[in-house]
Amino acid sequence: MTILHDYWRSSASWRVRIALAVKGIVWESYSHDLTRNEQRDRDYLTLNPQGLVPSWQEADGWTVAQSVAILEYLEERFPTPALLPSAPRARAEVRSLVQTIACDIHPLNNLRVTRYLREHWQADDARVTDWLCHWMREGFIALEERARRQGSTRHLHGESLTLADVCLVPQLYNAKRFGCPLDDFPTLVGIGAYLSSITAFAETRPESHPGAPR
Amino acid sequence: MTILHDYWRSSASWRVRIALAVKGIVWESYSHDLTRNEQRDRDYLTLNPQGLVPSWQEADGWTVAQSVAILEYLEERFPTPALLPSAPRARAEVRSLVQTIACDIHPLNNLRVTRYLREHWQADDARVTDWLCHWMREGFIALEERARRQGSTRHLHGESLTLADVCLVPQLYNAKRFGCPLDDFPTLVGIGAYLSSITAFAETRPESHPGAPR
Repeated sequence: MTILHDYWRSSASWRVRIALAVKGIVWESYSHDLTRNEQRDRDYLTLNPQGLVPSWQEADGWTVAQSVAILEYLEERFPTPALLPSAPRARAEVRSLVQTIACDIHPLNNLRVTRYLREHWQADDARVTDWLCHWMREGFIALEERARRQGSTRHLHGESLTLADVCLVPQLYNAKRFGCPLDDFPTLVGIGAYLSSITAFAETRPESHPGAPR
Repeated sequence: MTILHDYWRSSASWRVRIALAVKGIVWESYSHDLTRNEQRDRDYLTLNPQGLVPSWQEADGWTVAQSVAILEYLEERFPTPALLPSAPRARAEVRSLVQTIACDIHPLNNLRVTRYLREHWQADDARVTDWLCHWMREGFIALEERARRQGSTRHLHGESLTLADVCLVPQLYNAKRFGCPLDDFPTLVGIGAYLSSITAFAETRPESHPGAPR
């Protein structure tokens, strides 16, 4: 059986769950409670020396970490339905949107970073929220502009589902979770609302994860 | 003519310059001085609403941002010499190394972030350096472990040059620039020393950039 090492509230893990659902791939969850630092357990560090989720582990033990690397791998191994366009320029545009979220928004908002700010910089909840919302806002300004220009109200790129959409919805979820204002991003919010109605997004949401609190 | 919008000291831009040199692609630099915030000029924001470097602009005006998206695009358009292996698992491993640097080290150390820490959190030079070195160390611990396991002393993945090497050298350059200790990372330092002797790395280094101070 293939295993996704994840955590119910990890938005990077959710990206992978969406792609797996779109492609109809069967998998099992191995949940690592980030609030208890279970992703730093010795056994898991052997699989993933970075000690982060998600990691993708196949039946023979082969494991790869980093959500975007996993998404690209799934795309190559299970190309249908495609989550990347076929034309090189369109593929580059989608990857650019993906990286805007996966590199320039999410890593700044990761639990390990906010923990560091609390422990080493004595940040309180208000300052942490300011931090989170600032970097989301910076990224969303660029994404809103790109989404507005291309004109689709259902997808972040073009008229079909891509990896950019797969990354957008978990990031919007984080924005709502931390109460970051989204008033300036009506295009993104509209796209997010449409995408959230798609089964692959709805059934993989954090609250539906087997590791979520009941 | 194709243009790389970059800045001499931007390590994400350097990644792209290395790949361009490896593949023998002819290009021109359009330099944006980040210390003067030139990457936020209105004309450039039209090309790249995120206001970051690098961006890749082709002769007909088509432009794409995000270094990793540009690297993947160059790989698809100019496949020889390859900077990604051909087997899906090996490709995933290389991309995982790339993302460890491009998502989990570099964005936390970006100039826009250290500026924010100085302006909003009153961070002085010492605290900024602690911050930079902390996130480099976190990432390097994982990279050193992966490099050590695979046994090559010349490349971060396997026995040939990949995008992982292309990302490693600029990150090691940043570590040295900010005085972050590298004693615990002998494998990475060794690989970096070998790679730095390769023409594509040596001739594209920041100090050789036309925009570098003389």
